[in-house]
Amino acid sequence: MQEYNAPIEDILFVLKNVKSEVQNENDEYSDPDLMKQIFEEAGKFASNVLAPLNSIGDKKGITLENGLVRMPPGFKDAYKQYIEGGWSSVAGSKKYGGQEMPWNIVGGLNEIWHAANMSFSLNMLLTQGAIEVIEAYGTEEQKQKYLPKMISGEWSGTMNLTEPQAGSDLALLKSKAVPNDDNYKLYGNKIYITHGDQDMNENIVHLVLARLPDAPEGSKGISLFISPKNIVNEEGKTLEKNDVRVVSIEHKLGTNASPTCVLAYGDNEGANAELIGEKHGGLKAMFTMMNNARLNVGIQGVSIAERAFQQAFNFSMSRQQGNSIDGSKDGTVAIIDHPDVQRMLMDMKSRIEAMRALSLFTANELDLSKNALSSEDKIKAQENLDLLTPIVKAWCTDQGVLIASTGVQVHGGMGFIEETGAAQHYRDARILPIYEGTNGIQALDLLRRKLTLDNGNVFKRFLCDMRKDAKECLETKEAKLVEIGKKVIFAIDLLENTSDELLNMWKNSKRNAASGATPFLDMCGNIFGAWIMAKSAIKAHNLLKNNQEDKFLNDKIETAYFYVNTILEMSLSLKNVVINTHKNINSIFNMQG
Amino acid sequence: MQEYNAPIEDILFVLKNVKSEVQNENDEYSDPDLMKQIFEEAGKFASNVLAPLNSIGDKKGITLENGLVRMPPGFKDAYKQYIEGGWSSVAGSKKYGGQEMPWNIVGGLNEIWHAANMSFSLNMLLTQGAIEVIEAYGTEEQKQKYLPKMISGEWSGTMNLTEPQAGSDLALLKSKAVPNDDNYKLYGNKIYITHGDQDMNENIVHLVLARLPDAPEGSKGISLFISPKNIVNEEGKTLEKNDVRVVSIEHKLGTNASPTCVLAYGDNEGANAELIGEKHGGLKAMFTMMNNARLNVGIQGVSIAERAFQQAFNFSMSRQQGNSIDGSKDGTVAIIDHPDVQRMLMDMKSRIEAMRALSLFTANELDLSKNALSSEDKIKAQENLDLLTPIVKAWCTDQGVLIASTGVQVHGGMGFIEETGAAQHYRDARILPIYEGTNGIQALDLLRRKLTLDNGNVFKRFLCDMRKDAKECLETKEAKLVEIGKKVIFAIDLLENTSDELLNMWKNSKRNAASGATPFLDMCGNIFGAWIMAKSAIKAHNLLKNNQEDKFLNDKIETAYFYVNTILEMSLSLKNVVINTHKNINSIFNMQG
Repeated sequence: MQEYNAPIEDILFVLKNVKSEVQNENDEYSDPDLMKQIFEEAGKFASNVLAPLNSIGDKKGITLENGLVRMPPGFKDAYKQYIEGGWSSVAGSKKYGGQEMPWNIVGGLNEIWHAANMSFSLNMLLTQGAIEVIEAYGTEEQKQKYLPKMISGEWSGTMNLTEPQAGSDLALLKSKAVPNDDNYKLYGNKIYITHGDQDMNENIVHLVLARLPDAPEGSKGISLFISPKNIVNEEGKTLEKNDVRVVSIEHKLGTNASPTCVLAYGDNEGANAELIGEKHGGLKAMFTMMNNARLNVGIQGVSIAERAFQQAFNFSMSRQQGNSIDGSKDGTVAIIDHPDVQRMLMDMKSRIEAMRALSLFTANELDLSKNALSSEDKIKAQENLDLLTPIVKAWCTDQGVLIASTGVQVHGGMGFIEETGAAQHYRDARILPIYEGTNGIQALDLLRRKLTLDNGNVFKRFLCDMRKDAKECLETKEAKLVEIGKKVIFAIDLLENTSDELLNMWKNSKRNAASGATPFLDMCGNIFGAWIMAKSAIKAHNLLKNNQEDKFLNDKIETAYFYVNTILEMSLSLKNVVINTHKNINSIFNMQG
Repeated sequence: MQEYNAPIEDILFVLKNVKSEVQNENDEYSDPDLMKQIFEEAGKFASNVLAPLNSIGDKKGITLENGLVRMPPGFKDAYKQYIEGGWSSVAGSKKYGGQEMPWNIVGGLNEIWHAANMSFSLNMLLTQGAIEVIEAYGTEEQKQKYLPKMISGEWSGTMNLTEPQAGSDLALLKSKAVPNDDNYKLYGNKIYITHGDQDMNENIVHLVLARLPDAPEGSKGISLFISPKNIVNEEGKTLEKNDVRVVSIEHKLGTNASPTCVLAYGDNEGANAELIGEKHGGLKAMFTMMNNARLNVGIQGVSIAERAFQQAFNFSMSRQQGNSIDGSKDGTVAIIDHPDVQRMLMDMKSRIEAMRALSLFTANELDLSKNALSSEDKIKAQENLDLLTPIVKAWCTDQGVLIASTGVQVHGGMGFIEETGAAQHYRDARILPIYEGTNGIQALDLLRRKLTLDNGNVFKRFLCDMRKDAKECLETKEAKLVEIGKKVIFAIDLLENTSDELLNMWKNSKRNAASGATPFLDMCGNIFGAWIMAKSAIKAHNLLKNNQEDKFLNDKIETAYFYVNTILEMSLSLKNVVINTHKNINSIFNMQG
């Protein structure tokens, strides 16, 4: 049995069926056979090469030798195959050697890579982000110099934001950039640099936030720089090592094969650096990249959940323990026969399908925001993307932690033994609600920036679109679909009402409203998940007209039905939690600011 | 700042105020000053000796050298101090050198030990259980031989239940016991033996489940044996090593300083063993012990949650990041100023106080079941204990995992770095919902054995008692207390109604009802937690008449108010989840039994 099988059928179902019905200029990859072929190839590479290295990477970890990071055994070779398969270039623009696949296909591929091996795939995630920044803010010279090798996968990219005193609050950062000839010299220490050093790439292109000498204080005085590990000349050739040093690597709870580095810039003569984008415009450039990274981190939540689910499901089919509760089977049964194990598995499965559909729907909006045929559609897609990004990031990653924990539980005692593998997912998952903006920050972003977009009309319009899908369920007159439709509409109305109350609170007391931000995001996630499951169910219902027996399509409706009867139910209580959380949180703590 | 401060004020408040008002024969330790003194001494030992070793134990772990397990540095010495302080003997009977403290005091102490150092304290938890089994089932000779040294702490005890093919399903176990002279020889392999070997005790008294040659198959053919690491003669003197060997120690997700051993009995001549209790009556004896152990594991949930809370709270007071959301403070603030951080801390705090009160209330019922003055009170206490045990075990441990995870989240990026310490609690906590009967098994126990006690009347009577406390809140006519009382009564009514529906389901389909068992237990836990917070609030309210300014008592009411407005709210949705979960869980999986 393979450790991991890419859930290609569900990914293709979502990509084909569960998206906005908007014309997309980027239709080169819309042929179903081509899509299927891409995902089958990816699935093979993930199952055969990346997935078996996941546990090896966890156990062996990385090493720092003579100032250089070594990846675990097998990683370097896997990376070579990753490049040879053309996987590094799927998202990059054609002008610099990329394949320009639409973002929902890239999102589906990312789900597979991170499920197979999150530590390995973080390299690619960071590189994709760096490419995006250079595409958006680089000069043509910078693009020519860096993009072809980054898109080909020869070079990787990193993001250098955090400093010890500046984590969520980047305004506090201190690294300095000093003009030097036509360029700059960088000085400062950066922490938590994912894949900050490793031996899979010939060069690493660091994007670094720092302050110019004339910079104003706070967040408006931060600029962005390119400072590669090895200096690159005008022709794009790698020269000597730059003045950037790996100080240490962190010993972490999880993702042990992903080097998290402390980097020191300018210990000696200063690190060579080029300004990218406008002076003091660094945060803006970084946030462009971060939005896409947030969507991808949400997808990592789907990945770890799917991996944990497959592991638990396989275990439950083979582990023999106990008797059938209703005597329906003789003797000892596989634990999947026990209702509580079925409950856990079904809970995992239905959450995962909702998360996958919601995150790939969002990835498609990202694509439409760039490639929709009409400019109105582009604007609408951008608004949807802005609204959905914090929800996908926070909700899918919180679910990822929850599901990985359930995965351990299904294993009983063996779940706590590292050899089994379930525990690794529980450890790896825990970073997801933290990085690329903690989930608390996502919730605040949803409340203060997204819910208020166009005076709340973007949110209301999105809820209207959701209602349309739910109403389609009612029109089928099939009992289960009608129940799904009714429950989803009820929940949407409750959510709209909650958002009105929350915005009113915000006007009267930012502090009170902010204390309800996380339960509100959670409520949005659960209800958006219910809507996208309803949307999936109606598509499945329509497709079933061609083939009544199709197990996948029948299961989709059943899974949606389970979701609205359990997970959606829990979201209804969240309204009062959103409104009530502020009560007494201030009075208890003697705060010291 | 100390890493851990025992929450003595809250423990004493609960012990004195939040319990059944029933006369207890065992009142030797009821003097408030004496209780305070006991807990203050325990708190010092926990803070100064045990807590600092917690992270050392995690990092250094244990080693297996020449077939013997070595504990991490410092543990042996700490254990010596633990004995010298008299802590090993608090629960044992006086006849064999114990102090016979009531179980709620023992429970409060156990909370402190496990919060300070769970890996260390597991030794004591298992020994307490073994002592209990020998007290209940041993012959006078066995008691004289083993109890004095176990109660003094010179010897420890272990439970040997699990075999590779027999985890939750002990009916499948295969270890053999063969008569030999007046005693037995043991043969077989046991796994997951907590503190199965270590170098803190002179001898280890293993309690081992095995089958006699004439034993019937299944769970009715299992007997219990005493088989010490070193053979003990009639006078209680330690002789040569017994034929029990440490095969290996497990590499686990957490509790790294607690040796989890694979033990082989009878590799050579067979391990010397004595039968304890009746032939084929081993499971019954084991379950007596297990009930108490389950209560103690629930308390471990409180411990890990309290430790995680203290760590997160201290971090949030010192970490400077971001600005005050409403501009109420100038410049960068400690993150405890952020409403979402306050929400997390308050959520942790209010859950913990409910868990602590519920688990110590239950420990007091254990004591009353043995020491209440009237036999009716004893019976009622035993019924309450039976009902509450699975709830305390499962609910408090699920909460423990959740709260440890929130603790990581409060730390942001630093939470994922092992050095910080928050991650250890997240790892350590994960075993709690698994061992001593998985939480799924607890939920099934609640449904099929406890909810049905006396035709459901035990449960209904308990709900009636809960309503009385809630009504007391109404009578105060203080707005907050009235709101608490009303919400709790509403929830109790809903819970009663849910239990009726669930029992009806059980009559029609065990399978359907069993799929709702876990959400039902969760609902019970949340609502029992709300009741015990209401009970705490009313006591605080009454005590405030003497001192209106008392911060602790005022906070208690505020914390209860927060609980009913957030956590209790979430439990209301659980009714439909209990009833609906069975829908479609069977149809999806092609089960193979």
